[in-house]
Amino acid sequence: MSEYSLVSLGTMALDSVETPYGRVENTLGGSGTFFSVAASFFCKPAIVSVVGADFPKEHLNYLTNLGINIEGVEIADGKTFHWEGKYEGEMNNAETLKTDLNVLASFSPKIPKSYRGCNFLFLANIDPEIQLKVLDDIKPKYCLCDTMNFWIKSKKESLTQVFEKVDGIIINEAEARDYCGTKNLIAAGKKLCGIGKSKVIIKKGEHGCLLFMDDEVTALPAYPTSKVVDPTGAGDSFAGGACGYLASKNSVDIQDFKRAIAYGTVIASHMVEDFSLGGINGKTMEDIEVRLNELRQTISF
Amino acid sequence: MSEYSLVSLGTMALDSVETPYGRVENTLGGSGTFFSVAASFFCKPAIVSVVGADFPKEHLNYLTNLGINIEGVEIADGKTFHWEGKYEGEMNNAETLKTDLNVLASFSPKIPKSYRGCNFLFLANIDPEIQLKVLDDIKPKYCLCDTMNFWIKSKKESLTQVFEKVDGIIINEAEARDYCGTKNLIAAGKKLCGIGKSKVIIKKGEHGCLLFMDDEVTALPAYPTSKVVDPTGAGDSFAGGACGYLASKNSVDIQDFKRAIAYGTVIASHMVEDFSLGGINGKTMEDIEVRLNELRQTISF
Repeated sequence: MSEYSLVSLGTMALDSVETPYGRVENTLGGSGTFFSVAASFFCKPAIVSVVGADFPKEHLNYLTNLGINIEGVEIADGKTFHWEGKYEGEMNNAETLKTDLNVLASFSPKIPKSYRGCNFLFLANIDPEIQLKVLDDIKPKYCLCDTMNFWIKSKKESLTQVFEKVDGIIINEAEARDYCGTKNLIAAGKKLCGIGKSKVIIKKGEHGCLLFMDDEVTALPAYPTSKVVDPTGAGDSFAGGACGYLASKNSVDIQDFKRAIAYGTVIASHMVEDFSLGGINGKTMEDIEVRLNELRQTISF
Repeated sequence: MSEYSLVSLGTMALDSVETPYGRVENTLGGSGTFFSVAASFFCKPAIVSVVGADFPKEHLNYLTNLGINIEGVEIADGKTFHWEGKYEGEMNNAETLKTDLNVLASFSPKIPKSYRGCNFLFLANIDPEIQLKVLDDIKPKYCLCDTMNFWIKSKKESLTQVFEKVDGIIINEAEARDYCGTKNLIAAGKKLCGIGKSKVIIKKGEHGCLLFMDDEVTALPAYPTSKVVDPTGAGDSFAGGACGYLASKNSVDIQDFKRAIAYGTVIASHMVEDFSLGGINGKTMEDIEVRLNELRQTISF
């Protein structure tokens, strides 16, 4: 048994992002980062990732200070993964301007012994063959995964193997429609639910999320914020909030899953209100609970 | 005082519609039709509209049998308004293939005396100058209105006059963003709320709706149906369900508005499950209540 209730496999990045609100250069980003910071509200997560020798020590200290275990973060020769993107208009989709994989190109995850047999594992978007390898290495009690359109197109067979093995799939609406070959999201969610033992969460950005589980559909709107400064990391922090909550409960019951997507919704709403992690920094569990209650009020009729 | 609790001004049409589920020719449609049929679950609505001499008597009988008063429907020389459209992909937007205005081109609403001073008036999408005239003619206790992008571009000043005079605006997300010149829907809703005494409902199709009122935001997802056969009339039947409920309560209180958008959501969900009015025909108030409870379950966490 691992001492960690939640381990994630994801990227750590230095992002340059431009939105109608401004531009930031080389700020802390990456799916593993956003996920872990979000999860740290509920548990002490651990992260499997890779950074380059140029990665600022202060970022590692920042994560450690949040109670995130970084023993699984390899510091490799070379430069850290760099993503550059731009959001315009409704800001639901990023335009990728540049992707420098750098040390990520040859990333082969090294799993600390202490991570093996953890309760929850989250496999963020990465080559499904690496997802399968890490899942087999860690052998968690429960596993959830994300993916992206690129793998649906290029490695659908491996991806399907991942979907068959995990307990839950967290993907966005375009990916769900794409993988299932159907335009109706409810039909897509139900189809994904039929794969393996999967519970399915579909992320819809400003339009909220859907949960498909036990023949039941749960639908939540996004928390209504008029200040969307930078959507980078919204989906990853949603997943981190949701998985962090589930890990803290050590449960995959439907009631906990419903509560989990509500926490994910609230944490993502903080995240988008500033660049990088600025929207969530300094937020307390009390801030989260206040918005959870507001979200409940938002949907009451 | 009018004997009618709800009067609507809208179109009556013969539609030809193609969707991935098939094609129908010259079926009963039009904003006034969808609105009134939806509202008839809650009250006895009356309709101001125009049809041509070719309009089938059976359609008028169908409306009358639902308790809809058609004294305000003019039967003019010429052909009935005909709309032809096509839905593809995610089916959130129709591609208009043909619009034959016919008798609608010279439509000048004649208001039966018995409609004057009704409790609720709904002004469906039509030239805002006609909306202003009918509002002034009928002088209802409360008025709600819809519009479309065409009038936002071509007659924004008149439209703003309408918005300033009505109690509530029901429009779709693209129109809200367009009118307000902002991409953030929450910001758009709040801005619209600042006009006159307006309560604002933004319709988002498969993503549900938003209500802005009394400094509060209410957000509901769509009822999760995997069978969207024909979205024509979804927005109008949503408005009809919502206004019908408000008219039955003779109230514009926030609690009634919240309940109203939930009923609108449910009625629209039935409407889209078949062509024309097939999805709602034969449905009882009990069917509506069943889905209302299911909707409540859908958002519980």
